[in-house]
Amino acid sequence: MVEMMTAAVKLRSAPKSTEVRSVPIPSIGPSEALVRVKVASICGTDLHIYDWDAWSQARIHTPLIQGHEMAGVVERAGEDVTTVAAGDRVSFEGHIACGRCYECRTGQAHVCRNLRIMGIDRDGAFADYVSVPAQNLVRNDAGLPLEVATIQDPLGNAVHTVMNANVPGKTIAIFGLGPIGLMAVAVAKALSAARIIGVEKGNEFRKELAKRLGANEVLESDGSTVETVLGLTDGDGVHEALEFSGAPPALAQAVKVVRSGGGVHLLGLFNGPVSVDLTNDVILRGVTLHGITGRRMFRTWYEMQGILKSGNVDLTPLITHRFPLPDYAQAIEVVRSRACGKVVLEVEEA
Amino acid sequence: MVEMMTAAVKLRSAPKSTEVRSVPIPSIGPSEALVRVKVASICGTDLHIYDWDAWSQARIHTPLIQGHEMAGVVERAGEDVTTVAAGDRVSFEGHIACGRCYECRTGQAHVCRNLRIMGIDRDGAFADYVSVPAQNLVRNDAGLPLEVATIQDPLGNAVHTVMNANVPGKTIAIFGLGPIGLMAVAVAKALSAARIIGVEKGNEFRKELAKRLGANEVLESDGSTVETVLGLTDGDGVHEALEFSGAPPALAQAVKVVRSGGGVHLLGLFNGPVSVDLTNDVILRGVTLHGITGRRMFRTWYEMQGILKSGNVDLTPLITHRFPLPDYAQAIEVVRSRACGKVVLEVEEA
Amino acid sequence: MVEMMTAAVKLRSAPKSTEVRSVPIPSIGPSEALVRVKVASICGTDLHIYDWDAWSQARIHTPLIQGHEMAGVVERAGEDVTTVAAGDRVSFEGHIACGRCYECRTGQAHVCRNLRIMGIDRDGAFADYVSVPAQNLVRNDAGLPLEVATIQDPLGNAVHTVMNANVPGKTIAIFGLGPIGLMAVAVAKALSAARIIGVEKGNEFRKELAKRLGANEVLESDGSTVETVLGLTDGDGVHEALEFSGAPPALAQAVKVVRSGGGVHLLGLFNGPVSVDLTNDVILRGVTLHGITGRRMFRTWYEMQGILKSGNVDLTPLITHRFPLPDYAQAIEVVRSRACGKVVLEVEEA
Amino acid sequence: MVEMMTAAVKLRSAPKSTEVRSVPIPSIGPSEALVRVKVASICGTDLHIYDWDAWSQARIHTPLIQGHEMAGVVERAGEDVTTVAAGDRVSFEGHIACGRCYECRTGQAHVCRNLRIMGIDRDGAFADYVSVPAQNLVRNDAGLPLEVATIQDPLGNAVHTVMNANVPGKTIAIFGLGPIGLMAVAVAKALSAARIIGVEKGNEFRKELAKRLGANEVLESDGSTVETVLGLTDGDGVHEALEFSGAPPALAQAVKVVRSGGGVHLLGLFNGPVSVDLTNDVILRGVTLHGITGRRMFRTWYEMQGILKSGNVDLTPLITHRFPLPDYAQAIEVVRSRACGKVVLEVEEA
Repeated sequence: MVEMMTAAVKLRSAPKSTEVRSVPIPSIGPSEALVRVKVASICGTDLHIYDWDAWSQARIHTPLIQGHEMAGVVERAGEDVTTVAAGDRVSFEGHIACGRCYECRTGQAHVCRNLRIMGIDRDGAFADYVSVPAQNLVRNDAGLPLEVATIQDPLGNAVHTVMNANVPGKTIAIFGLGPIGLMAVAVAKALSAARIIGVEKGNEFRKELAKRLGANEVLESDGSTVETVLGLTDGDGVHEALEFSGAPPALAQAVKVVRSGGGVHLLGLFNGPVSVDLTNDVILRGVTLHGITGRRMFRTWYEMQGILKSGNVDLTPLITHRFPLPDYAQAIEVVRSRACGKVVLEVEEA
Repeated sequence: MVEMMTAAVKLRSAPKSTEVRSVPIPSIGPSEALVRVKVASICGTDLHIYDWDAWSQARIHTPLIQGHEMAGVVERAGEDVTTVAAGDRVSFEGHIACGRCYECRTGQAHVCRNLRIMGIDRDGAFADYVSVPAQNLVRNDAGLPLEVATIQDPLGNAVHTVMNANVPGKTIAIFGLGPIGLMAVAVAKALSAARIIGVEKGNEFRKELAKRLGANEVLESDGSTVETVLGLTDGDGVHEALEFSGAPPALAQAVKVVRSGGGVHLLGLFNGPVSVDLTNDVILRGVTLHGITGRRMFRTWYEMQGILKSGNVDLTPLITHRFPLPDYAQAIEVVRSRACGKVVLEVEEA
Repeated sequence: MVEMMTAAVKLRSAPKSTEVRSVPIPSIGPSEALVRVKVASICGTDLHIYDWDAWSQARIHTPLIQGHEMAGVVERAGEDVTTVAAGDRVSFEGHIACGRCYECRTGQAHVCRNLRIMGIDRDGAFADYVSVPAQNLVRNDAGLPLEVATIQDPLGNAVHTVMNANVPGKTIAIFGLGPIGLMAVAVAKALSAARIIGVEKGNEFRKELAKRLGANEVLESDGSTVETVLGLTDGDGVHEALEFSGAPPALAQAVKVVRSGGGVHLLGLFNGPVSVDLTNDVILRGVTLHGITGRRMFRTWYEMQGILKSGNVDLTPLITHRFPLPDYAQAIEVVRSRACGKVVLEVEEA
Repeated sequence: MVEMMTAAVKLRSAPKSTEVRSVPIPSIGPSEALVRVKVASICGTDLHIYDWDAWSQARIHTPLIQGHEMAGVVERAGEDVTTVAAGDRVSFEGHIACGRCYECRTGQAHVCRNLRIMGIDRDGAFADYVSVPAQNLVRNDAGLPLEVATIQDPLGNAVHTVMNANVPGKTIAIFGLGPIGLMAVAVAKALSAARIIGVEKGNEFRKELAKRLGANEVLESDGSTVETVLGLTDGDGVHEALEFSGAPPALAQAVKVVRSGGGVHLLGLFNGPVSVDLTNDVILRGVTLHGITGRRMFRTWYEMQGILKSGNVDLTPLITHRFPLPDYAQAIEVVRSRACGKVVLEVEEA
């Protein structure tokens, strides 16, 4: 007899075809664990899949249970699993690396050439239970609130970017104050960046959040942004620029406000090729453009959990909405509105 | 007619021969500036010179005005000086690098082979005025309290060490809770170290200070230290160990409590050669021992001033005693007692 | 009575207005040295100035003696100079850094914000004598041939780029086989790059030179370049790509042939903004784009002179043409033809 | 029916109790491969086990087939193995990492806290066949001679150390000219170290080999070594020192001949604690002591194979003796004599 669970299932190759319904609890292989989901959270990618954009059409096979951000408890571990056991509090790294390619064999599994992603290439966490490769599971401290535990995947993006920029004592600019940009503000503040200048276009809700999370100034992105940042920094510019918006004007601003010899750290995805004045903004000024993706496995997770443990980061203001799993459609509309921080699904109550 | 000033002068090659007296205000060369001292502070080295230990006898030429920690205001700049002007608030880097050797020419001026030190190799800051090479002057923010500005030289030692250990999110052990070790606690806390374990021998005053400045645990250094640290870290040990005590037992503990692949960062000076089990504690575990000295010129100063600007570091509890310059002998006995944090000389009132 | 010398002087704000004529030997300041030029060499920039392109019109003040690549002997040193003396064999770093800005104070003088350049912003080396700030002089080993000594400025560009790419044991692609690209081939070969793939457009002369200097394969840059490089590397791509061409198609190829997690090192200057598919080629693959300019002062010089001393680099094939200084116009036409390696001016014989 | 093979088996807890005899061909698990050994080579560790020293008595369980250096061909792969197949030319990384500890999860598997070693903690390669975890197998190029392929384990030690010292263009000292020190000479030469100074005690055979492999000078280790090295380097000292001898006097010399700001890279194992003047030689001069062990998994292997592919390293002179497997006892006496480079066992002919 198959045991059943509730899940939000993307049913068909079409927009909005996601329904909360009863499906079988997944089986697990010998190197996997079955995890009971307590809370999950919604990523911008989930909205893309919900809306069935071009990328989703090319990548996703339906039916699919979405969701790659969650916190839960191990229900059962496969026979070869030695690293977790039933009852362990866990979240998971959403990127499943092959472990065999050059990148994996040299400590760069986050750019594994055979990468598969939870909730995209296999069923994810918007469900009562999820099957996860044991190597992807990360144990959570008992003291870590579930609502913070579930957002470790995007927080890991922010930590990866902020650590790459080595911010202590530096003046930095953060472009794009969506959830990951906001997390970067909070993390950079916790790491004693000298001054944090946020840049966002049009979203006053998020600008306010940025200030609460530690930004010293928050600017509107427009034709005067470069001049304003230079003015705020005595004409010096910032030591490092962090780009989370994926907006071409932000990139153009980022390479112009960064000091010579500094770095621009790019995590936001652009919709197409972007034009850059490499000669004057990058080459002659010895600037470095860093492509950042995912989380260093698992260095970023250890760093993130350590930073959380320091007590210097309070992400509470960032979690602005909570919905039970059956209200998934409503939750995703809040994400679409951008008048939010992180939107959390309270699965266990579902 | 020579203008006179008050100064604490080490008069003779003998212990305690320091007198506060009237001496001529120093002249300056074309690349130097005359700085009016507002406050100064006392380093352990000043006690060594006061006591005329073996090192002092070999290095110091009397008469000498000691003092390499201070905050003041530029009174007059030499004709070739373009970087500061009369009225600028300043402190100075105490190490005068030659600018011509391999180390200086490759960004390692802190280990310049022709290093000269303010207050040791030429007259220093325990006086109303001090002559300083302009390249050594660092401007202070108007908002920086004088008592913090004066301790930037030792704070820079702490920042150099903590930045070298890249502490965000890491569990660290700090051996030796004298003033620089205490500063390292505060800086590591401000940079979101996951957990800070202080280790000190016998000095309850400083152990209490360490807790106030951010240490999660403070241990007595004894035969059980290694076991205790391993116990506190689930047997894992710490990611990085920072050594400020100069005590051989602390080194032995440091190399044993650090994780494989981690680093031991050595700033404290040992009185003689030290025995280390390199094979088992260092080589087979891939541990690195970093010799740390001075401050990276001037990277550490920029980092330090940026960290102070973040507002995450409060050094107020560290400054425990204040004396007018004429009470120099009394002040130095407080330093000797070790029942203190930093001891500050209020020069301008003198 | 003023002593005279022969020099190639750019006379007016107009193309080709360079004449070899008799001018006064320059005077020197207290921190400068007068250097007798033995050989000099021509950079692509000299051709731009000769042709009086838009950049030259905006930057250059005539009359000007061009030339920033040379080898010579110190004739006389200013009174404050302690690092060189009459008779010393020297070349010079062409970038004059201010020594006072943030970049200079943190070991990044190659991106000094007040940079001035020999032969561009003040008189250079296409003359019997040149006045040089002493801090820019680098001593040459007695055994270093003058023809190699003179090309250390562009060789330093190549060494800076190759060292930044950390090539030992790596498969690399080098785009643009002009003189600096060819030097990069030779240096990468000397540093045991596993495999060196050169890419050049249309210039068979330089392709042949690249093979002689150590390239394992040399490809024509065209629509099949990416596919060919991937084919040569079992579909893996190269570890690092070095870009010296300044041609937009080369950049597009470079970011596609580099492995995930690898670096693209950009020294060639593009004539305008360039379009890059940052999302797919850089961000999602964790690639880094490094802007490289000048030479690290003076780390690159020490590295370069050490690499030359190893005896592993033979640059003889690269020096293809020699002219006496009076034949400057003829020499510059050879540079224009691109059917050459480096073109050397034998000044002393002039 | 069990198939049999020839193997050199350490039989008992006693010196020299190794016999070449017929034993069963090992079985393999699902993640392992059976490898047919073509050639193997003898490490100093094999001599320690043969002689049954204190370390061996504490670590080794008999009976044991020794040997962790070899080149062979995959005979059969376990059912879960996807990375190699029958017929593949392979060598193996001798260190078996757990893959689950902090070190393994952060790219530092070479210091895995649960490390097991081939030929020490499980049967090794001095046999016709060896069972190897598939993750430890590394494929060899068809063009790589078997005699070079077998010594990749110690060559990897040398490459790890030399790459850690970043030698291109630097003057280096190499202490201890046993096989790994000699390999380091050859690799450093191939990476264009400016100058290589070898230091060895009493072994003229190895000094001669060092010169053939690329050392510019080879010194006898004695009371004048420090002075001689300083004399050879104009009093500057070397940029980096590499220590392979495990002899305390070599360490004392290494920390004194290295420049301020340089590194001492320690791979040789000392028999007990060593005394170091940390204050004067390390801390005040900003020197770093790097504990080096094993090979970075698998970065060092990729680097090594790339360096070999460059064609710049010729290790032929290093392989001085060859024996058929049955002459194991004779081969090990040659290793003991130290009048040799690497000693190879030709297993397949056995």
